[in-house]
Amino acid sequence: MENQQQDAEPEDNSWLQSRVAELENNWRTAMADLDNLRKRTVRDTVQVRQQERKRAAKELLTVLDNLDLAIGHAEADPKTIVAGVEAVRAQADLAMSNLGFPRYGDDQGEPFDPQLHEAVSVVPAVGVKPGTVVQVVRPGYGDAENQLRPAAVVVAKAD
Amino acid sequence: MENQQQDAEPEDNSWLQSRVAELENNWRTAMADLDNLRKRTVRDTVQVRQQERKRAAKELLTVLDNLDLAIGHAEADPKTIVAGVEAVRAQADLAMSNLGFPRYGDDQGEPFDPQLHEAVSVVPAVGVKPGTVVQVVRPGYGDAENQLRPAAVVVAKAD
Repeated sequence: MENQQQDAEPEDNSWLQSRVAELENNWRTAMADLDNLRKRTVRDTVQVRQQERKRAAKELLTVLDNLDLAIGHAEADPKTIVAGVEAVRAQADLAMSNLGFPRYGDDQGEPFDPQLHEAVSVVPAVGVKPGTVVQVVRPGYGDAENQLRPAAVVVAKAD
Repeated sequence: MENQQQDAEPEDNSWLQSRVAELENNWRTAMADLDNLRKRTVRDTVQVRQQERKRAAKELLTVLDNLDLAIGHAEADPKTIVAGVEAVRAQADLAMSNLGFPRYGDDQGEPFDPQLHEAVSVVPAVGVKPGTVVQVVRPGYGDAENQLRPAAVVVAKAD
């Protein structure tokens, strides 16, 4: 292969030279692009992290402001606080959902699912199919693909 | 320039050919690296976003669990709820601080700072230097570089 152009005209040589110059330029450009992209990626990652944190903090801030309102109200009329705090509690679940981790935990009677449930206790299966969730002790947040915390459940013995 | 190698030996030609092959290979490699980096950047951004959201959701979840405890306690002993909710409130500020937005708002008597304060009302300067914060209506979160929300303040008239 290295001999196939030995009889070539001088023009070929100048074509090769300009091809070398062109390729050197292409290569240099690609390497510069790569370097710039690497630097930009580092900057962008910092920015994305910051954006996401800010977005989440805003969700928490809404919960917190409502908690302040409930506390303020309670100082004027102590009986209102339980209802107020329960409203804040419901709203905190909405914030969790906005962050991509919806609450779940009404799974009583469903089959135990290791992707969604964590068995904190096992009881004899009386009147239910073995392996059924008989009680949800603490709700879970997220879904099977994206778990924040599984629901803590009591399960009917499997045999 | 294009003529400077017209008298070159055939060996020069084969050197140029192998240089072309080498540069084509370098260029191709750089382009492939660039393409891979672009794809990886997209994937990484999704992942960074998700990680950050999860981290923030865990902070919120801690607040939420404590809110549940306070509500549970209040059902047993209604008088405990105000103290319980106030403890949750303090802990929510800690969560905000963990997200990079510490609470501030004890700025009464400090000079008004447009980076940290939002003036919600202006009052005559009686016994204080004009432009002084005379009351903090609502605390702020963050700092001068990274603001989530400025503190809402009442300011003494500047003249």
